[in-house]
Amino acid sequence: MSEPLLMKLDNTVFLKGNNLVILDRRQLPHQKVEFVCTNYQEVAKCIKDMVVQGAGDIALTAGYGLYLAACRAEQVLNLGKRAVQAYLAKACNELIQTRPTGYHMALLLNRLLNNIDWQSFPWSTQILNSLKNMIAKQNSRAVLTGKWAESLLREGDSILTHCFPGSALLHMLHEAKIKGKKVKLWCTETRPYLQGAKLTAWAASEMGFEVTLITDNMAAYCMQKGMINKIITAADRIALDGTVANKIGTYQLAIVGSYHKIPLYILGYGGPDKDSLHGRDILIEERDPQEVLKINGQRITGDKVAAIYPAFDLTPPHLIAGIITDRGILAADKINGYWDLPISKTIGI
Amino acid sequence: MSEPLLMKLDNTVFLKGNNLVILDRRQLPHQKVEFVCTNYQEVAKCIKDMVVQGAGDIALTAGYGLYLAACRAEQVLNLGKRAVQAYLAKACNELIQTRPTGYHMALLLNRLLNNIDWQSFPWSTQILNSLKNMIAKQNSRAVLTGKWAESLLREGDSILTHCFPGSALLHMLHEAKIKGKKVKLWCTETRPYLQGAKLTAWAASEMGFEVTLITDNMAAYCMQKGMINKIITAADRIALDGTVANKIGTYQLAIVGSYHKIPLYILGYGGPDKDSLHGRDILIEERDPQEVLKINGQRITGDKVAAIYPAFDLTPPHLIAGIITDRGILAADKINGYWDLPISKTIGI
Repeated sequence: MSEPLLMKLDNTVFLKGNNLVILDRRQLPHQKVEFVCTNYQEVAKCIKDMVVQGAGDIALTAGYGLYLAACRAEQVLNLGKRAVQAYLAKACNELIQTRPTGYHMALLLNRLLNNIDWQSFPWSTQILNSLKNMIAKQNSRAVLTGKWAESLLREGDSILTHCFPGSALLHMLHEAKIKGKKVKLWCTETRPYLQGAKLTAWAASEMGFEVTLITDNMAAYCMQKGMINKIITAADRIALDGTVANKIGTYQLAIVGSYHKIPLYILGYGGPDKDSLHGRDILIEERDPQEVLKINGQRITGDKVAAIYPAFDLTPPHLIAGIITDRGILAADKINGYWDLPISKTIGI
Repeated sequence: MSEPLLMKLDNTVFLKGNNLVILDRRQLPHQKVEFVCTNYQEVAKCIKDMVVQGAGDIALTAGYGLYLAACRAEQVLNLGKRAVQAYLAKACNELIQTRPTGYHMALLLNRLLNNIDWQSFPWSTQILNSLKNMIAKQNSRAVLTGKWAESLLREGDSILTHCFPGSALLHMLHEAKIKGKKVKLWCTETRPYLQGAKLTAWAASEMGFEVTLITDNMAAYCMQKGMINKIITAADRIALDGTVANKIGTYQLAIVGSYHKIPLYILGYGGPDKDSLHGRDILIEERDPQEVLKINGQRITGDKVAAIYPAFDLTPPHLIAGIITDRGILAADKINGYWDLPISKTIGI
């Protein structure tokens, strides 16, 4: 079984000399186009333009952006400590504003800054070392989350996904394969960026799974026909009340899933956001309506037609069967118990 | 107020000499490309390939196909009565098989054949005259259905549509405009053929209405935000039990509408299909999965990914607030009372 490209961040976002290389996910699977970023502003632009996607991967990429900023401040601008601190604070701020809904980016950037021992030079090296630890940690979180998710699967399951639920989904499939559990995947294409088609369906099919692509309006039909018995998506941010912010369309799937009594599980990786008490505390990113009005640069409707593009929506806890984290599986309305769970090294199921 | 192109069939499907001209709806609104059909097989191909769309318009276009077949049989092939009858039966059969879900085509073609007085030559002229009557009749049905629909609208309504609900929707808007009722329209883009973007949103915006386009996965979000208070779609076929077959995605909108207590009204034009007792009697057309796997001819996912393309789905009557016909508005589970209603010449509301 070949390991899909999207299973590890290092395959698609990595340092090459002094630059950050980012594989353009918008052009997958047929074209492998690399963006080479020489400064944090270019990293911010890549994040904003969705060259890299998925809350966890975006956060780590922003971390590399902060590292590039530190390198520049120290080595090119030759700034003193105070000036470097100001430069990095500015970089953090600009990076965070690119995609405000995701939970992980601000958290990770703040941790990178807080981890710096300002008495010890060079600071950029400290950032890079912290970041490498975080990448390893996020990877093991994804592995554990994937294993917990796999524990829910039954032979013959037919799973609907939406957007790209990150590498935990691929780890889940990997684990199912090792155990010889046969499952099928259904992927919504996930307009307008088609992550379900370009990333999830492609990656899972390369792993040898049977994958069927549907347009976003076919999900209820498939459920009515008994083609689907589980729904699994990720979360960009989870509030303490169990509300899940995820790619636009998740809420719609949660409703039609509930109508057909099909459980929705959320891959919650490292748990909820301590600072979001309620769903309403989560800011939903509004992107440029042109991204809806055009396909491949061509306008698909009349010139007088407007559009909206909320990139995420909020799914209330009562529509969620469970949130799968690296520490175990919780009911959505009990997600604030996440920190009471022991950190699982292995899963004893 | 300019009358939109799609308000009357004669604007987009018409005879030019001995040929049938069909405006390619797939390329609207930015390109006006005409297909010129010289025989019924070309008409059948245009219907199959979705050059013309919408159950009612497809039926009338197929009627023109039968007319071209009769012309050919009489004038080119110089066939006798029996041979012409066989030729037309074959043409009917081929035309009907292009799009099996819609109610109107088989009904219309059979009526055209049954209306022929075989003692009176030329038969092709009889077909054309019958067809012209049917076009006029369908137009007045659309006008009446649109007027009944308009009677449901309240000032400030914000209406979600799906796919292209035919000219009755435009007549509804026309009537609202005359009465000075301000309403807004939301259109799902309706993947994979984008009729909501290319046809509905365009036509309504050209009439001067405020129109907002959304991807198919945004409907529930808009409802949650209170942006929508009515849903109006058409029907390709209505069973006697009130089940509605319509463009894939309608069922999903019906569920999320019901969840948010937003009523779904169906533009039912000439009522239900006498031969479909139950929803399960309606055959759902399965189209080529390539139409989902590709956008503008380019594959959007990996080579090992499969797809399905059910062109329609079935919405049960309990999710429908009312079916709007040319004779009045009925509860979905009372749609078999359609024929008991008087034929309305004017609407006294």
